[in-house]
Amino acid sequence: MEHGLEDMVALMERTPAALDALLRGLPEMWTERSEGDNTWSVRTVIAHLIHGEDEDWIPRAKLILQSGDARAFAPFDREGHVVYGQGKTLEQLLDEFARARAKSLAELRALNLTKEDFERRGRHPALGSVTLSQLLATWAAHDLTHLHQISRIMAHQVRANVGPWSRFLGVMQCAGHSAAG
Amino acid sequence: MEHGLEDMVALMERTPAALDALLRGLPEMWTERSEGDNTWSVRTVIAHLIHGEDEDWIPRAKLILQSGDARAFAPFDREGHVVYGQGKTLEQLLDEFARARAKSLAELRALNLTKEDFERRGRHPALGSVTLSQLLATWAAHDLTHLHQISRIMAHQVRANVGPWSRFLGVMQCAGHSAAG
Repeated sequence: MEHGLEDMVALMERTPAALDALLRGLPEMWTERSEGDNTWSVRTVIAHLIHGEDEDWIPRAKLILQSGDARAFAPFDREGHVVYGQGKTLEQLLDEFARARAKSLAELRALNLTKEDFERRGRHPALGSVTLSQLLATWAAHDLTHLHQISRIMAHQVRANVGPWSRFLGVMQCAGHSAAG
Repeated sequence: MEHGLEDMVALMERTPAALDALLRGLPEMWTERSEGDNTWSVRTVIAHLIHGEDEDWIPRAKLILQSGDARAFAPFDREGHVVYGQGKTLEQLLDEFARARAKSLAELRALNLTKEDFERRGRHPALGSVTLSQLLATWAAHDLTHLHQISRIMAHQVRANVGPWSRFLGVMQCAGHSAAG
C-alpha cells in the first residue's frame, strides 16, 4: 500500500477493540454523562463514529474516485448521530461500530487504490480542495480526536473528586478545541 | 465499596487492555515518535504508567494509612520512567503495565478500606493536604490524562497528512496543558 495507507489502516482496525476494552461494562457515571449542556456523552461519541462509517469516509472516498472535485461532498451532519444512538445500549453501539468499521475497511481494500488515486482531488463543502490521501489520514486522526474527547469527558466526571491534583492533570485543563472535540 | 472506589477501579482495571488493543503491533511511526524535543513518545508514556504503579499510587495510599499527614509523600520523579523503558519493546512494556496494574489493584483490595479511611489525610510535597479519596480518584484520572496525551502524540504524527482538515480536528489544536500532559 502507498502513501501511509497501511499505517492509517493499522490504527483504524484497532480503534473498535480499544474502545470496547475501555468502555464495555463501565459504570454509567463514565459513559452516560456529558461535560454539560449541549456536549456529548461517551455514548454519543460512539454513535457519531458509527454515523461516520456509514455516511462520511467511504462515501466521500468513492465520490472522489468517481467524480473528482466536480461535485462537493454532501455536508456531514454533526447531529446526525442521534438516530444511530436512539434506543441502543452502549454495548450495542460498540458492536455496531466494530461491524461498521470492519465493513468500511473491507470496502477500502476493495477500492485497490493506486499511487495516483491518493493525489486525486475532491471538494469539501467548507474546506475546498482536498486529496484522497488527506481524507484517509483524517479518517484515522478522527478516531484520535474522539479518543482525546472521550478521555476528557470521562475525566470531567471526577473533576471534583481529585481535589488539588487537578492542576497536575492536563486533561482537566482541556476545554476541547473545536466543534469536533 | 465506598466513595466511588468501585467506579475508579472499574476504569483502572480496563486501562491496560484498552492500551493493549490500541497499541500492540502498531507501526512505530505511531508509537516511537514524540511531539518534538523533550516530549514523550507513546512508548515513554507506558513506561511512566508502570513507574506510577511501582512508586506512586499504592505507596502513597499506604503512607496515608500508616502515617497520615505526619510525613510528606516522596516526590514522584517525572523522569523516573527512563529506567523502566530501557531496552524494552512496547509489547514488553504493555505486558509489564498489565501485570503491575493487576498487582496494584490486588493490593488496593487487600487494604480493605473503610468509609473513614477515605477521608484520611496525607501530605503532598507540592499540593499540601490531600485525602486518600482524592488520591484514588487521581489515580484513575491519571490514566485518562495519559490516554488524552497518547491520542494527541499519535495525532501529531499525521498533522501534515490531514491538510486543511486539521482545523476540524480538536486534537490537532491541543498543545497539552501541563507537565503531566
